Amino acid sequence: MILNNLDKYRIILASNSPRRKQLLGDLGVEFEVLTMDTEEVYPEGLSMKEIPVYLAELKAKPFEIKEDNWLVITADTIVWCDGEVLTKPNDADDAKRILQKLSGKKHQVLTGVCIKTKDNKRSFYSSTDVYFKELADNEIDYYIEHYKPFDKAGAYGIQEWIGYIGIEKIEGSYFNVMGLPVQHLYEELKKI
Amino acid sequence: MILNNLDKYRIILASNSPRRKQLLGDLGVEFEVLTMDTEEVYPEGLSMKEIPVYLAELKAKPFEIKEDNWLVITADTIVWCDGEVLTKPNDADDAKRILQKLSGKKHQVLTGVCIKTKDNKRSFYSSTDVYFKELADNEIDYYIEHYKPFDKAGAYGIQEWIGYIGIEKIEGSYFNVMGLPVQHLYEELKKI
Repeated sequence: MILNNLDKYRIILASNSPRRKQLLGDLGVEFEVLTMDTEEVYPEGLSMKEIPVYLAELKAKPFEIKEDNWLVITADTIVWCDGEVLTKPNDADDAKRILQKLSGKKHQVLTGVCIKTKDNKRSFYSSTDVYFKELADNEIDYYIEHYKPFDKAGAYGIQEWIGYIGIEKIEGSYFNVMGLPVQHLYEELKKI
Repeated sequence: MILNNLDKYRIILASNSPRRKQLLGDLGVEFEVLTMDTEEVYPEGLSMKEIPVYLAELKAKPFEIKEDNWLVITADTIVWCDGEVLTKPNDADDAKRILQKLSGKKHQVLTGVCIKTKDNKRSFYSSTDVYFKELADNEIDYYIEHYKPFDKAGAYGIQEWIGYIGIEKIEGSYFNVMGLPVQHLYEELKKI
């Protein structure tokens, strides 16, 4: 692999997201998965860009790294629309309300990433603009019924059917919307 | 599926591209694959936008549709950089030359699509801007050695390692760069 500077590290991905696991693997990085419970709460008054970085750092906090060769990667993805964070939906009605809000307009997807070793911590974020067409009610209902997007911030996965039929264009990184800005992460890992 | 208007059709995808097959399938369309040999040649003087539409229509030409229920979909993707079409590479040296040309700048990926039935023909294209970072020689060499992108216009696949580490951002449809603008295609299929 190209990132030879990482050979000396045992790399830990602190995320159970199957999409993040796939993306980090496809980047060519060998890693283990180890997650710690974190309550995803952030203080009021943070900006759109500060929130995902704060949450990524919060997820890294429980890792008290004592070994020289540990490298922990955490990430948090938020969906930002009309000045507020859209959370994961509670149920089908909530998912429908969220998708109706995203319909016919632009929103932002931001992923914060924290890379933590024994002596260092490096954080950054990546932002992508996503443009949904006007979604018809039967398209929203079909998607929620068949894909049950209850584990997804903003109630959609760009790599699923609703992303195929509903997203007219994006500006930024596609993989960032999936949950991990792999190009930016690669550049940061090169600097370790 | 949502596109009930297509129920009466036998849908033919005239492409052997595994990426197009995957994309059309994930769109929720049931189809068969049937290809006809076409020499992909276009007249001089066509614009960047006319070339992929011309080639998609050329691929549809051999299908002399006599059945009312046939619907044929053809597509052609071109990579356009510095005023010229970048073809599929002949060999590893050619692939390296092409990727060095794409390095550190913006290029366009355009896919033309033709939908043909017994009495109608509908064509359109979609365009995406793709921004590569400055690629290092060892990154280009690693990619060509491990991924052998000789069947790909522009010598890369956005969904492969070089897309992960090399593409800073896109403006437009990601799936269009993979070879099929599924969102636009969905809207056109709704009108059939």
